[in-house]
Amino acid sequence: MVKQINDVMPKIAFGGDYNPEQWDENIWLEDAKLMQEAGVNLVSVAIFSWSVIEIEEDQYDFTWLDKVLDILHNHGIGVSLATATASPPAWLSKKYPEVLAVQANGVPLQVGSRQHYSPNSKRFISAVQQLVTKIAERYKSHPALKMWHINNEYACHVAECYSNESLATFRNWLKERYGSIEILNQKWGTNFWSQRYKDWEEIQFPVNLPTFYNPSQKLDYKRFMNDAIFNLYKTEKEILRKITPDVPVFTNFMYEFKPLNYFEWAKELDLVTWDSYPDPREGKPFRHAMHHDLMRSLKNGQPFYLMEQVTSHVNWRDINKTKKPGEMRLWSYSTVARGGDGVMYFQWRQGKAGAEKFHGAMIPHSNDTNSRVYQEVKQLGNELKKLNGIVDARIKARVAIIFDWENWWAVEHEGKPHNKLSYLDQVYQYYQVFYEHNIAVDFVQSTDDLAKYQLVVAPMLYMIRAGEEANLKQFVAQGGTLIVSFFSGIVDAQDHIHLGGYPAPLRELLGITVEEFAPMAENETNTIVMNGEIFITNTWADIIRLEGAQPIATYKENWYQDYAAVTFHRYGKGNTIYVGTNPSTNYLEKLINGILQQLKIEAPHAAPKNVEIVERSRQDTTFLFMLNHNEDPVTISLNENIRYTDCLQGKSVTNRITISGTDVAILTYSNADIS
Amino acid sequence: MVKQINDVMPKIAFGGDYNPEQWDENIWLEDAKLMQEAGVNLVSVAIFSWSVIEIEEDQYDFTWLDKVLDILHNHGIGVSLATATASPPAWLSKKYPEVLAVQANGVPLQVGSRQHYSPNSKRFISAVQQLVTKIAERYKSHPALKMWHINNEYACHVAECYSNESLATFRNWLKERYGSIEILNQKWGTNFWSQRYKDWEEIQFPVNLPTFYNPSQKLDYKRFMNDAIFNLYKTEKEILRKITPDVPVFTNFMYEFKPLNYFEWAKELDLVTWDSYPDPREGKPFRHAMHHDLMRSLKNGQPFYLMEQVTSHVNWRDINKTKKPGEMRLWSYSTVARGGDGVMYFQWRQGKAGAEKFHGAMIPHSNDTNSRVYQEVKQLGNELKKLNGIVDARIKARVAIIFDWENWWAVEHEGKPHNKLSYLDQVYQYYQVFYEHNIAVDFVQSTDDLAKYQLVVAPMLYMIRAGEEANLKQFVAQGGTLIVSFFSGIVDAQDHIHLGGYPAPLRELLGITVEEFAPMAENETNTIVMNGEIFITNTWADIIRLEGAQPIATYKENWYQDYAAVTFHRYGKGNTIYVGTNPSTNYLEKLINGILQQLKIEAPHAAPKNVEIVERSRQDTTFLFMLNHNEDPVTISLNENIRYTDCLQGKSVTNRITISGTDVAILTYSNADIS
Amino acid sequence: MVKQINDVMPKIAFGGDYNPEQWDENIWLEDAKLMQEAGVNLVSVAIFSWSVIEIEEDQYDFTWLDKVLDILHNHGIGVSLATATASPPAWLSKKYPEVLAVQANGVPLQVGSRQHYSPNSKRFISAVQQLVTKIAERYKSHPALKMWHINNEYACHVAECYSNESLATFRNWLKERYGSIEILNQKWGTNFWSQRYKDWEEIQFPVNLPTFYNPSQKLDYKRFMNDAIFNLYKTEKEILRKITPDVPVFTNFMYEFKPLNYFEWAKELDLVTWDSYPDPREGKPFRHAMHHDLMRSLKNGQPFYLMEQVTSHVNWRDINKTKKPGEMRLWSYSTVARGGDGVMYFQWRQGKAGAEKFHGAMIPHSNDTNSRVYQEVKQLGNELKKLNGIVDARIKARVAIIFDWENWWAVEHEGKPHNKLSYLDQVYQYYQVFYEHNIAVDFVQSTDDLAKYQLVVAPMLYMIRAGEEANLKQFVAQGGTLIVSFFSGIVDAQDHIHLGGYPAPLRELLGITVEEFAPMAENETNTIVMNGEIFITNTWADIIRLEGAQPIATYKENWYQDYAAVTFHRYGKGNTIYVGTNPSTNYLEKLINGILQQLKIEAPHAAPKNVEIVERSRQDTTFLFMLNHNEDPVTISLNENIRYTDCLQGKSVTNRITISGTDVAILTYSNADIS
Repeated sequence: MVKQINDVMPKIAFGGDYNPEQWDENIWLEDAKLMQEAGVNLVSVAIFSWSVIEIEEDQYDFTWLDKVLDILHNHGIGVSLATATASPPAWLSKKYPEVLAVQANGVPLQVGSRQHYSPNSKRFISAVQQLVTKIAERYKSHPALKMWHINNEYACHVAECYSNESLATFRNWLKERYGSIEILNQKWGTNFWSQRYKDWEEIQFPVNLPTFYNPSQKLDYKRFMNDAIFNLYKTEKEILRKITPDVPVFTNFMYEFKPLNYFEWAKELDLVTWDSYPDPREGKPFRHAMHHDLMRSLKNGQPFYLMEQVTSHVNWRDINKTKKPGEMRLWSYSTVARGGDGVMYFQWRQGKAGAEKFHGAMIPHSNDTNSRVYQEVKQLGNELKKLNGIVDARIKARVAIIFDWENWWAVEHEGKPHNKLSYLDQVYQYYQVFYEHNIAVDFVQSTDDLAKYQLVVAPMLYMIRAGEEANLKQFVAQGGTLIVSFFSGIVDAQDHIHLGGYPAPLRELLGITVEEFAPMAENETNTIVMNGEIFITNTWADIIRLEGAQPIATYKENWYQDYAAVTFHRYGKGNTIYVGTNPSTNYLEKLINGILQQLKIEAPHAAPKNVEIVERSRQDTTFLFMLNHNEDPVTISLNENIRYTDCLQGKSVTNRITISGTDVAILTYSNADIS
Repeated sequence: MVKQINDVMPKIAFGGDYNPEQWDENIWLEDAKLMQEAGVNLVSVAIFSWSVIEIEEDQYDFTWLDKVLDILHNHGIGVSLATATASPPAWLSKKYPEVLAVQANGVPLQVGSRQHYSPNSKRFISAVQQLVTKIAERYKSHPALKMWHINNEYACHVAECYSNESLATFRNWLKERYGSIEILNQKWGTNFWSQRYKDWEEIQFPVNLPTFYNPSQKLDYKRFMNDAIFNLYKTEKEILRKITPDVPVFTNFMYEFKPLNYFEWAKELDLVTWDSYPDPREGKPFRHAMHHDLMRSLKNGQPFYLMEQVTSHVNWRDINKTKKPGEMRLWSYSTVARGGDGVMYFQWRQGKAGAEKFHGAMIPHSNDTNSRVYQEVKQLGNELKKLNGIVDARIKARVAIIFDWENWWAVEHEGKPHNKLSYLDQVYQYYQVFYEHNIAVDFVQSTDDLAKYQLVVAPMLYMIRAGEEANLKQFVAQGGTLIVSFFSGIVDAQDHIHLGGYPAPLRELLGITVEEFAPMAENETNTIVMNGEIFITNTWADIIRLEGAQPIATYKENWYQDYAAVTFHRYGKGNTIYVGTNPSTNYLEKLINGILQQLKIEAPHAAPKNVEIVERSRQDTTFLFMLNHNEDPVTISLNENIRYTDCLQGKSVTNRITISGTDVAILTYSNADIS
Repeated sequence: MVKQINDVMPKIAFGGDYNPEQWDENIWLEDAKLMQEAGVNLVSVAIFSWSVIEIEEDQYDFTWLDKVLDILHNHGIGVSLATATASPPAWLSKKYPEVLAVQANGVPLQVGSRQHYSPNSKRFISAVQQLVTKIAERYKSHPALKMWHINNEYACHVAECYSNESLATFRNWLKERYGSIEILNQKWGTNFWSQRYKDWEEIQFPVNLPTFYNPSQKLDYKRFMNDAIFNLYKTEKEILRKITPDVPVFTNFMYEFKPLNYFEWAKELDLVTWDSYPDPREGKPFRHAMHHDLMRSLKNGQPFYLMEQVTSHVNWRDINKTKKPGEMRLWSYSTVARGGDGVMYFQWRQGKAGAEKFHGAMIPHSNDTNSRVYQEVKQLGNELKKLNGIVDARIKARVAIIFDWENWWAVEHEGKPHNKLSYLDQVYQYYQVFYEHNIAVDFVQSTDDLAKYQLVVAPMLYMIRAGEEANLKQFVAQGGTLIVSFFSGIVDAQDHIHLGGYPAPLRELLGITVEEFAPMAENETNTIVMNGEIFITNTWADIIRLEGAQPIATYKENWYQDYAAVTFHRYGKGNTIYVGTNPSTNYLEKLINGILQQLKIEAPHAAPKNVEIVERSRQDTTFLFMLNHNEDPVTISLNENIRYTDCLQGKSVTNRITISGTDVAILTYSNADIS
């Protein structure tokens, strides 16, 4: 049986990607000693090493990797060992060109960068299987091996492939899904525009079309590619599980990443890990905070690892600002606060050649251990040792936001009433209100058991699949509060309209019908009024007919003035709120704060603006994070009934605590104090 | 002999595209009943039905279409029956890949959207011939059949094809046009840049070139593609004419559509029809009004059908605003006013699947007959019955604007002194002055008989083909007034310069030579002065040498200050005005109003701003349309000598009439009253 | 032995491209007479004549060219005879499709424009060899032949080719460069991202890659393409040298042209020539002045020819403003002032057909010799005769700017800390200060002997190849002053980091280490203070550690406030200044003026703003150019000790001289007067 991560690593993981093959062997020992000094306890090795391991077909060179793992182990550093399949070697595509992914214009991708393979190439899959088997056999008993890092950032660059082999695979996938061509015709609505198929072989990729695509076909193509790439992962996992049944496996996820349905993937990961690169130009990284919460939610609250972040600045944006002194540390604590049990970097030593040589690292080009960058790394690495007690502690959220990858795919497809809507932006808009008020939020799927939440938010949940409305109804009927925003409940799993008045599956629950959509022009606004107060709204207005609901905000302008913009409806023991427009943030704050008050949902601790407060707790102990994103110090009054200990200072605190600018306090207390 | 449209449909056609194959059969009867209720008398059927009619090669299923036509006929609804060739079925391109159009990069278009065929594929043409023959034979005697709707929006998406078969066809087209390769070399000016050909097989498409194209070659490619697509139309027409000699045929045209020379096409249509989708973000749809006038002009004043419009909002723009209450009705009356004898929609019932499911329709997704959208449709459909007397009534214009598709192709090709000029914008600029003053305008070609007009405007008529200047001279010599704007008369039919001083063919007529072009930078302006009044101008300044003409406006600034910007010249019994710059609208208003006063050309009726006034008349009766585009009501004083009847109210009117905001009045009076 | 240009043309060359094959033969005599009238003494013939010379493979028609050359010679006009290889004829690519260049998507370029050949096609090369041999043999003894004009604007449109033949050639080029695949792996850093090669045949083009390219590979591809095109040139040169050993050869260079390393090319040219098309929208053409200085510097000060300019306006920009009266003449004198011994136009007679028919010429479409354009040409052509004494006169510069094409290629490749940096803009920024103060500047390479300069500037010299730092150190050690700007000295010839602290090769010389890069966001600024005065800076901040240097400006804001922004360091007998940010122009003026004062470097003559002052001198005589770019006249006091002669007026001047707006004075004096 696979071991629990917190058994394998009963401390906060700290380290980074380590690519010793890019350096002379004589630096490896120095690396290990510096790692020790910096508090490193885990490194990811061999992520891009296929071409130096399998130097030609079936010829392997493990000598260098043997040495590296031995050195690391001898210095007490664990290894998250990669399967090295992230980028295939040149000899493979030279010998078997069918492994190359093919672009929409029919031109194959080439070797010279990375990840140029087609996930549908049988030849590629068998090459992967062979390599993974070899590596697993080689290192299955190596004492440094802590976990398996499968591939790397799946689909980061290549989420589509238009090869002939992919097309054949797509047709098989469709056959499996639909059984008969007649059902496919129904599910794709092919009587529209004379698109009817009589044979599977007639089906083409949704690409190189004269105009608007069949949305059902496009959606299935996205599903198919997600599945194809997921199969690659599962192929590797299966081999690893067989050879090393007790070693945890995972791959690393990404930020705002649309192509892969991570909720589905997470079921096959023993540990969720992800790579976080907030752009310092954005200031306080609230969008990354949301992703921490999302990543934690993927496995139902189980802590995740931040597998990559950068010490200073990346090199792949147009302009790559560097994190100010203290920001890297502060943001790392936000990671831990929100459920991170690992804080890792790309990468250990800054590269001297290649496309990422200007990407920051733990050891800079200067190799200078007095450098600001290394000093901050070392400080953090050694501080984190004081926090090991937090491992596997959980976050309790009474609020959940529905997040749905298939919805994301469908709602951002062309041909909508408003084609500049961003699903993520709609989610961010609601999330941000909770974030700024330090209210813990989980992310859920429409089919999840929602009973543990008091408030669920469904922003722009365009797609409602069969049965999902029943789950939402049950949640509300039993006393829950549900907020639904505009353009929700419109289509089914095939992106076909739920006929009978929008949003047909939710009309009864919300007590309304949306008679028409009235998108607004790009700079157009309207105003809405709630309790006599006026707010700006833009982007979209639903023309709502009340069918039981009561208006709680109405439009002031345009031909639909005095129509309801936001409605309230009692359903069973619970309530629903429908927001039929895109109101300003201050409106959403007003609306949601009212709801929170009514539900008695509060932040873990009061705090000044821009102080992030998060709590994680274990059976007996709670860890209270206070992260000061301001440049100036803040002072916070503490609960007089609780005996706090300042974790990093290692001393008790009473009455109040002062936190410097860009600094953090982590207080622990016994759960007995508040019970 | 083919029947006149007004014999076939002696009333205003009202209805829309009807796609019953997208719905269960059990809804068809309900459809027909609702159509009756809404006043529908004509529907377009089978436009995208190829794949459900010819279900595989040479196997036909007409059962569903038989039923549909019977139901419609039984409910008194006529059918504009499509030939179903707008989009070929998947089996056709699977079996014969040569039917696919090929993109510039050599990649064929694919099935999955629509209109992916190459017009130059012999295989496609023969498939079309076979299908059209079958359909025509099947329904030639069906009593519902009113007219044939050939294909749909030709070239909407695919106006270019780069297949090998297209290339061979292009070479043959050139052989036919030029006879010898030596003449082609002359006509294309191939001694420039070493482009000389010695063999037809050396000629390639004007595509994938390192830099600027040969403009003569590119122009011929546009002519060739227009001809190729036109041949497709004519192929269908020929079959239909043979099988049903008395049934009118047409295809539907589009808005601002550059690839097809509609003046040429209209000769082969029994009825001009077009699809109008004004963007509600633009407010009053004046550009669509211009297209109504253009469509009416294509067959010398013969009324047209608006074959498609939307009830509410489309789905193919970035943001799709919906028409406000009343706008759809008001704009429909503008259609009728400007020569429309048919008002049709895309489509009857809003689709539940496919790329256009968010495109508005006469029956919305809710199927709710109380919906605003359906109610407005029903109101209009029933109102229009009161206007049947207008059918075939005509509009008398004393002003004409020259509109020329080949000029459009040539003048917007790269490599000009100013490469951001839009031909349409130049035409709009002049048209708008007449539109805002309710002066009726026809559109003409340079070769037309212009004797019936007093004023002709030629905006940016860059291309003057052999003999065209003679026609213009004759018009002026016999007393006409001609306005010509800058960059006119520059090239011949091959896009070769008319040497000898710009604009060589018009110098005598205009009494000027343009010595130099002085385009202005993007935000640069100049001022011109006329009668002591100062106006802004931008974009372009001709440096004019007077050769008989008199300056009527001169520049105030820059090195050409005091040079003439606008000139006047007496020629024979008439006058010419040359506008050598791009003046502000208020200047053009001043200039044109002066000319209109002198020529005693007036609006049919005085009216406040934003009230559109148009007159159509038959032998005995005149229909006076007053369309109030304002949100507030207007009151208009009427001629006391005329006995008006308000058509929609069905009562007589005297002295004055008040029209609500976004409303219309249609008054009729006997022509005897004003004779 | 090849003749000196000033022996072949002992006067200022004046004329233009002449394309008689585009016109009827009967105009050629008129052309020659008009040329005489306009002072034309040299024309470029046959640049795009391949298809009318070699009318099919191995069949030549020289009759027309014989006649043209005879007529020209009979009128005293010399010929710069082109090798006609600039664009191959249609029959060549029809018969041998492998001569076509191939685009990144695999689609070959086509005939129909120009320059569609692949420089790596052996078939193309042999066709070139054959043609050039034929032409050279034919005209080797023609008395009109003055020089050979090889091809035309190499790589203007096609600087990349992705054909299979190019790929094979690229692999051979790499084999030659690196000898073994193992060395290539090291030099390309292929252990990064699993990019290791074990066989040359595995190497692909750096194109069609999923994400960031290997920068070393991309850099080598640029080198390879430069070499491939350069080989084409050298192939032609070799033939011409053999057949006509005494006739100078050259090709014409371009403006801001990145793909070709002109410093390398110039070694193989007997004369540097270039084509200058300043955009009149930019006002005073300072960027073109810089290119004059660069072109003069390519052969160590030897005068160049301006081979193409336009009389009025070009036609290939979006908007093509025309030069105001006088500007063409004034800018032509700037050319002569900065080392131009030839002033030529594209083209003699404005074309009537083809892609460039709206490009201005010496004779306009109207053929009107009274036209402004022709009159200005004639005036200039006849004036220049008075300046023949200037031929081969030189410019003495005490300031040099390092300009480096490989650096340009490397520093603008993706993946940098700041990816919106423009190398040219950085060079312009420093150049402009000298230009506005009329300080003569040469351009040099890092390896040049710098001893003759007092001040050398190295803007953003990102790449320092082996040994180059030694040359810079020697220059400073012996008393020179060196200014280096940010992001310099970062990589070696392979674009690999110089490890050990930035900028490793220059740390000792500059007395600093750059600890970190802190790029600024797009609208971010900071301020720096120098001697109590405050200046704006943006784009970039280096975090500098002083290691011997002294700060001369420091930051006022952000977390690095009080850190040094600009530093000064004494090294040997000289000084270095490091500018670690992108300061405003007024700061650079302050900084550089201070340095110039200290070094006692002054303009040749004091002058009001926007008066360009340049001196060229021979052994005995100096030519002092005073170019008034203002619209108003200026008066300039003269040195009382010098006896000036006004060249164009042909009279002596004393005390002061007044120059009209957009006019020029050229004064000569004996060098004895100032010695």
